[in-house]
Amino acid sequence: MSNPVLVEVTRGQLVESRHRGMVSVIDADGASVMALGEVTTPVFQRSAVKSMQALALVESGAADAYGFGDKELALACASHSGEPEHMRLAGDMAGRAGLTEADFECGCHWSSHLPVLVDQARAGEMPDQLGNNCSGKHAGFLCLSCHAGVDHHGYVGYDHFVQSTIRGVMADLTGAALGHDNCGTDGCSIPTYAAPLDRIAHGFARMTSGVGLGPERAKAAQRLISACMAEPFYVAGTARACTELMQLAPGRIFAKTGAEGVFCATLPEKGYGIALKCEDGSTRGAEAMVGAVLAKLFVDDQELSQKLTSWTEKRLRNWNKIEVGMIRPAGELA
Amino acid sequence: MSNPVLVEVTRGQLVESRHRGMVSVIDADGASVMALGEVTTPVFQRSAVKSMQALALVESGAADAYGFGDKELALACASHSGEPEHMRLAGDMAGRAGLTEADFECGCHWSSHLPVLVDQARAGEMPDQLGNNCSGKHAGFLCLSCHAGVDHHGYVGYDHFVQSTIRGVMADLTGAALGHDNCGTDGCSIPTYAAPLDRIAHGFARMTSGVGLGPERAKAAQRLISACMAEPFYVAGTARACTELMQLAPGRIFAKTGAEGVFCATLPEKGYGIALKCEDGSTRGAEAMVGAVLAKLFVDDQELSQKLTSWTEKRLRNWNKIEVGMIRPAGELA
Repeated sequence: MSNPVLVEVTRGQLVESRHRGMVSVIDADGASVMALGEVTTPVFQRSAVKSMQALALVESGAADAYGFGDKELALACASHSGEPEHMRLAGDMAGRAGLTEADFECGCHWSSHLPVLVDQARAGEMPDQLGNNCSGKHAGFLCLSCHAGVDHHGYVGYDHFVQSTIRGVMADLTGAALGHDNCGTDGCSIPTYAAPLDRIAHGFARMTSGVGLGPERAKAAQRLISACMAEPFYVAGTARACTELMQLAPGRIFAKTGAEGVFCATLPEKGYGIALKCEDGSTRGAEAMVGAVLAKLFVDDQELSQKLTSWTEKRLRNWNKIEVGMIRPAGELA
Repeated sequence: MSNPVLVEVTRGQLVESRHRGMVSVIDADGASVMALGEVTTPVFQRSAVKSMQALALVESGAADAYGFGDKELALACASHSGEPEHMRLAGDMAGRAGLTEADFECGCHWSSHLPVLVDQARAGEMPDQLGNNCSGKHAGFLCLSCHAGVDHHGYVGYDHFVQSTIRGVMADLTGAALGHDNCGTDGCSIPTYAAPLDRIAHGFARMTSGVGLGPERAKAAQRLISACMAEPFYVAGTARACTELMQLAPGRIFAKTGAEGVFCATLPEKGYGIALKCEDGSTRGAEAMVGAVLAKLFVDDQELSQKLTSWTEKRLRNWNKIEVGMIRPAGELA
């Protein structure tokens, strides 16, 4: 089976490039609401499932023990842009467990937000691990480990308490078998697992509806999703898709991207879980797909649906700010 | 018709993302040597045809009048990374026609090479038009206009002498009708035209073989392609695909990329022209495709073919430099 073209990029009056994708939307009862392309093919979940990976932080009592509020929990679920607020908070979270930047194992990179990168360079700074887009998640991992009294060294390893704990939670939530066979290494060095898209979507439907979860897990899931929706800047950053989508409909959309064109979302009021992937791994393709899918799912709310459509159809401008084309939904998402 | 998967990106033992593409290789007589996917669908040529756009600079005598050697001609055909050497030479070329940075109409952006961007920011610099990846081409346009005694203002416009001249040359070379119907605006504000991939490939076969061209044009084309092969750094820059491919087989490969996943090349010794596009517009996809196509075309030279295959199969490392996967040819290019 092949994946359909769901997004096209135009220039002048012609289509210049095309993005194919697969989309699964599952309701609280596990029924399919929308299925486009290869929804049963395993895809690496990457950072789109950070909220699932943060469940143990809440369920274990670590989040309460360290006094984490919405901002901290949002950052634990984030792929942030390495803006100063993100970096400070990640350092602060680790500090509450008595740890420092040197204890992180995610690696360093510059801010992904160009103006911040330029500011950092001008100030003579060098990239550090707090600026890694995953540093909030890693701060959460460190806190989970310390709270459990487990040596945090090597917490990114497949066999470490942290990774085996979150692997169990994710397998439980999605019903997908996760192990060495479908494991890869993520950008920040932790294991990432390939799971069928419809299983991931179902996991998110359960996260947001609580259906089929024990009361503790349902509460933890709701707390994390609410935290992200309450503090969308801490989930991504300035001009980022996750942040903008959650700001567009406060409390009604949870959205989280992952590398290689993955995007997950939930609609709490409908109990839907959404998981999609742009076949070629591009971010612009995945962003247009998630916007178009959300616009379709909110078709009963014309104002919100229109806002989502406007957000999705990005006008492209060149270095002289001349409009040269657009990114727009195509095929079954048009 | 649909385009085949030609490149895949792996993580662990699994394929994570896939790139589809179309490839046309045409020989000096206009016969097809390789055709994959939709080779007759028009694609925007973008920066991959800068060497065609530079023909008028040579044919008009402007290049000689301003004393341009290999470096200048290579830069006129370049999408450079905005490294100091590129910026200096672009300014120098315009200076020979009595013009300055303010006369360029390409717009500003930071260097695309991160270490240079960081150096520029540290030095308190701001992006200027000489740093635009197209500044060498624009310097050539300015010189073409000045040498012809035409007011250079508005040289990026569809109806200006510069653009109508190069439109005529490109239509002649490729045999494709170029006009308002298939015109878009490029990143640097000049018109870019969509032409069938097999027509573009044939244009490059004619550039490199001279077959079917008048003696003046054949000489100008050969001079430009030789200049690029002699000075590959000036065609792109540090760690860039065009530069590396031409360094890999000096004098035997001319290669030039364009935005949205276009890549063109010629093999002077075989008289072949190559044009390809990654359907989704990605650079990594187009680079792997051109490397794999070149490896196939040089199958009779085992050493070079092996070098090209090694170059093509990129090992991917994460922020901790751990190998996480690879980019590799797939399907008919595997």
